[in-house]
Amino acid sequence: MSLLVLGSIALDTIKTPFEEHAEILGGAASYAAVSASFFTTPYLVGIVGDDFPKEHIALFKERNIDLAGLQVVPGKTFRWSGEYHYDMNNRDTRSTDLNVFEHFTPTLPEAYRKTDFVLLGNIAPDLQIHVLDQLEAPRFIVADTMNLWINIARPRLMDLLGRIDMLLLNDSEAREITGETSLIKAGRCLREMGPAYVAIKKGEHGCLLFGDGEFFSCPAFPLEDIHDPTGAGDAFAGGLAGYLAKRDGSKETKVEFKHLCQAVVYGSVMASFSVEAFSVDRLRTVTPEQIQERFETFQHLSAF
Amino acid sequence: MSLLVLGSIALDTIKTPFEEHAEILGGAASYAAVSASFFTTPYLVGIVGDDFPKEHIALFKERNIDLAGLQVVPGKTFRWSGEYHYDMNNRDTRSTDLNVFEHFTPTLPEAYRKTDFVLLGNIAPDLQIHVLDQLEAPRFIVADTMNLWINIARPRLMDLLGRIDMLLLNDSEAREITGETSLIKAGRCLREMGPAYVAIKKGEHGCLLFGDGEFFSCPAFPLEDIHDPTGAGDAFAGGLAGYLAKRDGSKETKVEFKHLCQAVVYGSVMASFSVEAFSVDRLRTVTPEQIQERFETFQHLSAF
Repeated sequence: MSLLVLGSIALDTIKTPFEEHAEILGGAASYAAVSASFFTTPYLVGIVGDDFPKEHIALFKERNIDLAGLQVVPGKTFRWSGEYHYDMNNRDTRSTDLNVFEHFTPTLPEAYRKTDFVLLGNIAPDLQIHVLDQLEAPRFIVADTMNLWINIARPRLMDLLGRIDMLLLNDSEAREITGETSLIKAGRCLREMGPAYVAIKKGEHGCLLFGDGEFFSCPAFPLEDIHDPTGAGDAFAGGLAGYLAKRDGSKETKVEFKHLCQAVVYGSVMASFSVEAFSVDRLRTVTPEQIQERFETFQHLSAF
Repeated sequence: MSLLVLGSIALDTIKTPFEEHAEILGGAASYAAVSASFFTTPYLVGIVGDDFPKEHIALFKERNIDLAGLQVVPGKTFRWSGEYHYDMNNRDTRSTDLNVFEHFTPTLPEAYRKTDFVLLGNIAPDLQIHVLDQLEAPRFIVADTMNLWINIARPRLMDLLGRIDMLLLNDSEAREITGETSLIKAGRCLREMGPAYVAIKKGEHGCLLFGDGEFFSCPAFPLEDIHDPTGAGDAFAGGLAGYLAKRDGSKETKVEFKHLCQAVVYGSVMASFSVEAFSVDRLRTVTPEQIQERFETFQHLSAF
């Protein structure tokens, strides 16, 4: 089944305590689409400037990502620069230059409007809603968000929550939206705001999935060395939504909680590969066999 | 099989954002012994003053805890007072009065020296070693520790690590001892210091267990309301060690990694009951059926 992936496409400059890389492929939609491409054909909705390197376009094509929804316009591509602290869990943004992304208001290609599955990557809720408004009958909508939107666009974020099936966010964001320190309470509270399913990402501590009277705790993959955490959440979202689109063989197949548990694990698998290298360097070279092998490793991690 | 439980026995005064209780039964050995008593007959090694309420002695007896190793001496019982922050994850110690505990150097009853399983609760490494020195042929030694000993008794703590089979500690302590921010690296590093097995407790994020090329991630039980986190780690240790002693039917049975995974889950089950009330109030009233039910719930939490 089809999966629309909306989000930013950026050129990132990233410094960790051990390495620095400039102007590498980044952005929520880049990570999510490459991740999802191992499960389905993502329809990429994004914008870049005419300075966007052709090799990145080639990479998207190599991963069979549909680019009818990718606008290439005069001007500069969105740029982001950040520096990670010693623990690799926290980072400071050094600069954000929206450039062509600033006035991005996509009009979807006709084929995209009929998409069944939707991943609204982490961008302004206004833009997420603008895209939702163009869809004919989406069957399962996943949205990612972040603390910036909680702070500057809370009413629109609340509108969005009423229209999606599943919300992805990290633990500090879950606490911030709900005002609850307990993540268990926060998960329940977020479901009351709209989405039937909520996944709270906890980085090195894994992920919690909340459904209607249902709960799943997904462990984190035990990685000793993390090279670049950038995009881990987007790779997670892409793997999750991509798997849901893949397993959905017919229009009648309802998405059930057990499928979402598996999707969360596939998302965690893709995130664990993503952080093993900068940009999408590890993600793009992973094999379906390696993905399946790590999925099975996850089954052992918490078996007793 | 027999289980020796060493640790403090205290009268605690505890304030949470919601409740305050004064002079209630506390101390690592109290929580651990009551928790372990659902699996085996713990040999309690501790000290109290002549002000120690008879009702607490009665409680220990009610739980079939062997008290031959409990010294009752003239003077006041160890007192601790603490206050939890709003998030219930952090606390400030308001006062610590060691009283009779200050000069505690136990001489074990003859029967205790032949114990097979040992739980060295969180007290000074010197005292933990003093007890180990009196044992004839312990088969599996579990020790708990805390940041205080890392700071003021590191050399003795290192001596201890070379003599135990399993170390229990929390995530911040694991990072502090090893200097590693990654818990995965910290787990490996701690094993290199001596113990074949290391369990890193992460509170609301569950627990990680490290063995020789083996790894287990135990989820946390999804509790919405935590009444008092005091003693959760000790209840965990007691459940873990108690289960190991219980399942060990013969002298030949080797403790294997899969048994430790189950032990970690039973420990987590007991910790989850412990925090549902102040002191050992919930622990003492739990039933074997409720323990087994929650153990089975843990199996569902991370199944996909």
